[in-house]
Amino acid sequence: MLVQKHRFRLPRFHVEARESLPVAVGYETYGQLNATCDNAILICHHFSGNSHVAGRYHADDALPGWWDPLVGPGKAFDTNRYFVIGVDSLCNVNVRDPNVITTGPATLHPETDRPYGNAFPQVTIRDNVRLQRELLRSLGIEKLACVAGPSMGGFQALEWAVTYPEMVRRVIGAITSHRALPIFALAACHLGTEMIETDPAYLGGSYYGGEGPIRGVSQAVLLLTTLTRSDRWVDAMWGSQPAAGSPDPRTHRTGHYAFQAEMERIARDRALHYDANHFRYLARGAMLHDITYGTPGLEAAAATIQAEVLMLPIVSDLLCPPAASEELVAAIRAQGGRARCIPIETPNGHLAGIFEAKLMAEPIADFLAGHTFA
Amino acid sequence: MLVQKHRFRLPRFHVEARESLPVAVGYETYGQLNATCDNAILICHHFSGNSHVAGRYHADDALPGWWDPLVGPGKAFDTNRYFVIGVDSLCNVNVRDPNVITTGPATLHPETDRPYGNAFPQVTIRDNVRLQRELLRSLGIEKLACVAGPSMGGFQALEWAVTYPEMVRRVIGAITSHRALPIFALAACHLGTEMIETDPAYLGGSYYGGEGPIRGVSQAVLLLTTLTRSDRWVDAMWGSQPAAGSPDPRTHRTGHYAFQAEMERIARDRALHYDANHFRYLARGAMLHDITYGTPGLEAAAATIQAEVLMLPIVSDLLCPPAASEELVAAIRAQGGRARCIPIETPNGHLAGIFEAKLMAEPIADFLAGHTFA
Repeated sequence: MLVQKHRFRLPRFHVEARESLPVAVGYETYGQLNATCDNAILICHHFSGNSHVAGRYHADDALPGWWDPLVGPGKAFDTNRYFVIGVDSLCNVNVRDPNVITTGPATLHPETDRPYGNAFPQVTIRDNVRLQRELLRSLGIEKLACVAGPSMGGFQALEWAVTYPEMVRRVIGAITSHRALPIFALAACHLGTEMIETDPAYLGGSYYGGEGPIRGVSQAVLLLTTLTRSDRWVDAMWGSQPAAGSPDPRTHRTGHYAFQAEMERIARDRALHYDANHFRYLARGAMLHDITYGTPGLEAAAATIQAEVLMLPIVSDLLCPPAASEELVAAIRAQGGRARCIPIETPNGHLAGIFEAKLMAEPIADFLAGHTFA
Repeated sequence: MLVQKHRFRLPRFHVEARESLPVAVGYETYGQLNATCDNAILICHHFSGNSHVAGRYHADDALPGWWDPLVGPGKAFDTNRYFVIGVDSLCNVNVRDPNVITTGPATLHPETDRPYGNAFPQVTIRDNVRLQRELLRSLGIEKLACVAGPSMGGFQALEWAVTYPEMVRRVIGAITSHRALPIFALAACHLGTEMIETDPAYLGGSYYGGEGPIRGVSQAVLLLTTLTRSDRWVDAMWGSQPAAGSPDPRTHRTGHYAFQAEMERIARDRALHYDANHFRYLARGAMLHDITYGTPGLEAAAATIQAEVLMLPIVSDLLCPPAASEELVAAIRAQGGRARCIPIETPNGHLAGIFEAKLMAEPIADFLAGHTFA
């Protein structure tokens, strides 16, 4: 499946923080929109992801999009039947990826022609949802057969269900929760931001033109990577071997383990492609996520949901544990809605929702076929 | 129960890192050693703890020792019957607490009369166990009725079972594991150390005489505090209220939540009492913990254990999850040993092993009375 990036622009977009600004985001589509425009599925991406959900740009691309095992002809999100759309988030961390189109602190301010930096307004998960709606409208889509996403993408999918309840027939929240839980907020968002701001190279956010706070971003990414994996996954990858060329850490104080060196390398490789301010803004936006915002509470939020909801948590997930999915499902059912939680069994932690996406294929296909609540 | 601190000195102590040095650690005792010297129970402390396990120094002390609900006349560790001992660890983080006696990087080198700093040798969990043995020997104790401890104290208790198998009748490992698991090693030890070393005030470890890297230590403590609590605990404490005096974080970019402000305050209050190098050394020592070190593996280590072993994990513990306790228990049983795991039900995470210690009273009393394997 060969795909290409498109650009969606709005000359004036109002964000929850009561400012307005010109924005542009990238998007990709897979399959064909039908004549009645009712076969569209929106797939929202996770924190480190982007609009390249599936397929390849060129036949010889090393890797396809991040949820490719689930999206394509004959797959769970069957592009022979559905018109699937992926959209870049605002403040996407992968600013330097030529295939990402986003607007955020690294964007040039139209008046000064210099990066916004910390003058950029805070954007929320709900802001992304509102922007996605404008994009869909521009494509002639007023109803979604489904909105789905893992992790922060699931935050958006669930926000869709309460922000535009009449537009969404089905919602799939994978490895996600209806609000940012405290451990996630403190460890991934609050401390990640602290680590970036502590790096002297952060320069109060005005590091553009220089290298930027690579050490701080690496630490923030390492924390996120650690908490989104699991003991079993790290053990299976590296066991307790010393790093290549390192003496035994137990007897030599300069020694370190392979899992330390490799997890650091993975974090640093990713950090080199990230913009530090985008990380901070995206993390804060994620931390503020709560579908009950603006309502009296979960009961009221659940009562507004008209869509059928499928939650797919992973049993070994530290950041969005199954209990959170079950709480939302119980709240929706208590209001007479249709919701179901199907825990996915794998010992590999949160990110198995991306790297072992195939485990979710059957429950997703069943849900889209209408079997889950038949 | 009024108690006092004692001091144990060794003019020359050999550590695993093949160096020797003079050491001193504090200890406390509760109850009376009997004539046959076979009623001693050693209780080892957690990362942020010390030898003040139970009782008060003065009748008007605000708080008793950290496991006081379990230790005293008529309690699970019954001091009418047992002689209970608590010992300060080497490199104890609470160097500035006048009730802590420890030896570590902040100690004055006997030749230069200046702090060792990073010239101090790395010490391990097993080094602490070997030092505790010397202390016990000085008290005339050659057998322990039990060795017990939570978290890092449990690391020591389990190391006792393999280092001096013939000396230990029973072992209790609470909220612990037979080795430092990868998430604990990466998040609490590796990243905690990184955060301290990134603080410009760290000065390569030679900050003595100045204020030290308080910001870095605060971040490291915040990470540890976050991971040793739970979503449920944070929610119950602060919900999603803005911090006192803060605007709503959702609509004001300077806003922050009460749980952020309060968890930061808790971390900073503790960081002010910590020595940064002691934190680094203690964290690295914890990270290197593995009872299988020096053996071909868990099977071999389990085969050396003669003690009865009781593991008390907490179901909501992110750092030492019940599965780790179950793995050790299965390994000991497979070698014909006696071991049992009793998961403790509370939603409050790892530190419930300290703050809700009473939940462990009954299984501990049963175990010491010989009922667990009757």
